[in-house]
Amino acid sequence: MFVDEDNITELAAERWATAHSPRMAELMSALVRHLHAFAREVRLTEDEWTAAIQWLTAAGQTCDDKRQELILTSDVLGLSMLVVQLNNRFTAEATPATVLGPFHIDGSPTVPRGFDMSDGIPGTPLFVTGKVTDTEGRPVADAVLDVWQADADGAYEAQLPEVDEARLRARYRTAADGSYCIRTIAPRGYAIPMDGPVGDLIRATDISYFRPAHIHFLIDEPGYRKLITHLFRAGSDYLDSDVVFGTKDALIVPFTARPAGGAPDGSRLDAPYLHAEYDFVLQSG
Amino acid sequence: MFVDEDNITELAAERWATAHSPRMAELMSALVRHLHAFAREVRLTEDEWTAAIQWLTAAGQTCDDKRQELILTSDVLGLSMLVVQLNNRFTAEATPATVLGPFHIDGSPTVPRGFDMSDGIPGTPLFVTGKVTDTEGRPVADAVLDVWQADADGAYEAQLPEVDEARLRARYRTAADGSYCIRTIAPRGYAIPMDGPVGDLIRATDISYFRPAHIHFLIDEPGYRKLITHLFRAGSDYLDSDVVFGTKDALIVPFTARPAGGAPDGSRLDAPYLHAEYDFVLQSG
Repeated sequence: MFVDEDNITELAAERWATAHSPRMAELMSALVRHLHAFAREVRLTEDEWTAAIQWLTAAGQTCDDKRQELILTSDVLGLSMLVVQLNNRFTAEATPATVLGPFHIDGSPTVPRGFDMSDGIPGTPLFVTGKVTDTEGRPVADAVLDVWQADADGAYEAQLPEVDEARLRARYRTAADGSYCIRTIAPRGYAIPMDGPVGDLIRATDISYFRPAHIHFLIDEPGYRKLITHLFRAGSDYLDSDVVFGTKDALIVPFTARPAGGAPDGSRLDAPYLHAEYDFVLQSG
Repeated sequence: MFVDEDNITELAAERWATAHSPRMAELMSALVRHLHAFAREVRLTEDEWTAAIQWLTAAGQTCDDKRQELILTSDVLGLSMLVVQLNNRFTAEATPATVLGPFHIDGSPTVPRGFDMSDGIPGTPLFVTGKVTDTEGRPVADAVLDVWQADADGAYEAQLPEVDEARLRARYRTAADGSYCIRTIAPRGYAIPMDGPVGDLIRATDISYFRPAHIHFLIDEPGYRKLITHLFRAGSDYLDSDVVFGTKDALIVPFTARPAGGAPDGSRLDAPYLHAEYDFVLQSG
């Protein structure tokens, strides 16, 4: 049986449905159907097809150990955030998930309560405090908060040449009452990398290529659904236009200005600082 | 407005619809909708999303000046052949189009009628003769047939380290009566490259990874639609399972065995040879 414009989608989908794993068969034949539906709907020209192949090739070749242009592609198309939501349907009481992003580094050092993970990097001092609880409000003791953020230039450690010590990332533990205390610097909004294929696409649109100021959190405790999320600074630029669609109302937190003096970790600060309070609520499962 | 599982597709599609070119706006917002529809239908998991990103990255990084793994991806998903068909809706009298493939080289030498483009490469001698006409049967004089094929190992010149002279590719001109005469060697079926990411996918299925024996033709004459096609050898293996979906009934041609002696170009051959006859019919436009 030879192909024509009408039967090719069914033939290709059937062929890929011979995958030995039933899930792969499902995924590949659905991929064929949706890709073909796209090409048919827009009646993709041969020149556009060629441009798409060249674009994807360039995106793949832009990736290295410091950069992942294809994750960025998925992010700016809203696909990453859709996948997060499809897989993290928590109840309304639980803290919602958002994108992991490409900058998480495994194995951050476990540090004591109140440790300053900014360690001399310039910025406005920020304390983040609160509790980790379950959806009934019961504290989760000894939970690990894996925390990471960009510096004031928007650079994550993962983007920099090798650094000696963990930079703006650390793992904090909750106390018996579920409370935690993080010291860092206030994050700022930043532009995604615009010097590659994703930047070329975005510059051809009116899309804002910034992310609002945020800090990343990963909490993965036995008995609870893994929570990957951000806290966003209330009032920061780009909250309404986050280029990766990551912002959620429930994740926006005021960073309250505090005068020099007693700090949440019990120490005294010589300069004014900011304080954000947030309780992470884990979905059991 | 912040995203949730229900509104993210519309938000992302609207954002990409701000592309300054109306066609890019149409393409990108359709791409968003179809990609999201795929992820929703299969409820793509986070691990599957990660595997897809890694696969695409590897495919992009497999590409170089001799290899295009993303064209191969499009080919094996049937997307290339679908795009060919969407853009080459010829009438039933015209020769149908098929995939270009990644191995065409521009600027092949223009050679005289009957020139042997195999030039000493081992194989069974093959003559291909016939006419180029319009859909009314009128000859197209002075038309250029750009011809290329793989050797008996399935290797195209574009896949080999640099060669001194054009290898199994040439441009032939039709005479005043539209006739042409090509001398080459019989092509053989061959496997697509299986040592990369596409091979990994195909090995996880029952898909045959071979292409039937074929010769490529490109005819691009003023006043006619460009024709990119193949001729397939009748009776060759894999006609029913061409891994890139390129086979068409109207492109299958008998390679008739002829005894040593007078050849179609008027010369005499010392050994038996094959002879294929085919009239290419160009759609005006």
